Amino acid sequence: MVLNEAAQAALNSSKLVHLTTINPDGSTQVSVVWAKTDGDDLLVGHLGGGQKVRNLKRDPRATATVITGHRNEIGLDEYLVVHGMATVEEGGAPELLQDLAHGYLGPDVKFPPMPDPPPGTVLRITAHRVGGVGPWME
Amino acid sequence: MVLNEAAQAALNSSKLVHLTTINPDGSTQVSVVWAKTDGDDLLVGHLGGGQKVRNLKRDPRATATVITGHRNEIGLDEYLVVHGMATVEEGGAPELLQDLAHGYLGPDVKFPPMPDPPPGTVLRITAHRVGGVGPWME
Repeated sequence: MVLNEAAQAALNSSKLVHLTTINPDGSTQVSVVWAKTDGDDLLVGHLGGGQKVRNLKRDPRATATVITGHRNEIGLDEYLVVHGMATVEEGGAPELLQDLAHGYLGPDVKFPPMPDPPPGTVLRITAHRVGGVGPWME
Repeated sequence: MVLNEAAQAALNSSKLVHLTTINPDGSTQVSVVWAKTDGDDLLVGHLGGGQKVRNLKRDPRATATVITGHRNEIGLDEYLVVHGMATVEEGGAPELLQDLAHGYLGPDVKFPPMPDPPPGTVLRITAHRVGGVGPWME
């Protein structure tokens, strides 16, 4: 496993994740997303066809970063960086987002809020390497 | 000004900033840093000569992202993305980090903690465009 127990915990604690993809001109595109793990994969749901989805279809390299809220022994904030490769799965976004919304918004929240959401896409980012500051760097 | 009042507030509230640079192979490098603004510039101090400094000397494109802790009217978390171009200034890092540490660690903290820190570098990232979710998207 690339994601050890501490990394799994950081990624499954309903902390917002910064997801970075690569634009056609080589610059970086960043958005803040909800996520959870499935083994060494990170799952992110997206209702529309935004820039990050187009980017990942062209270049699957993705980086996900999360701040845990803990500090290390010299007072610096822990954070986890996951470098991975994404596959874009069509459909399934409303179900994944509803599942994630329980943790991110509240146990009784209905999300997406609209009655008939589009199927969207699920981004499955397979972790290849981790970085940052914390107990996943061993 | 690219950074309006709300963006300035988000960047000067001692929230951790995710800084993204571009590796030689075109992949993204992310680290979590302290920052504050100087007009439309974002200032980040770095004691060593890490990968992000080497990257920015080669390719100045940088992206900085911060989560404000506020939510918009449908409950989604606000976040600010700043796309900019960095210049790397030699020296000045200990003074900048000490200034930032008052907000990030505590009013009385001495940082860097060592007696004789290296001069390091200051990354000055001039904002060219903002993105994200929040009152800077007008």
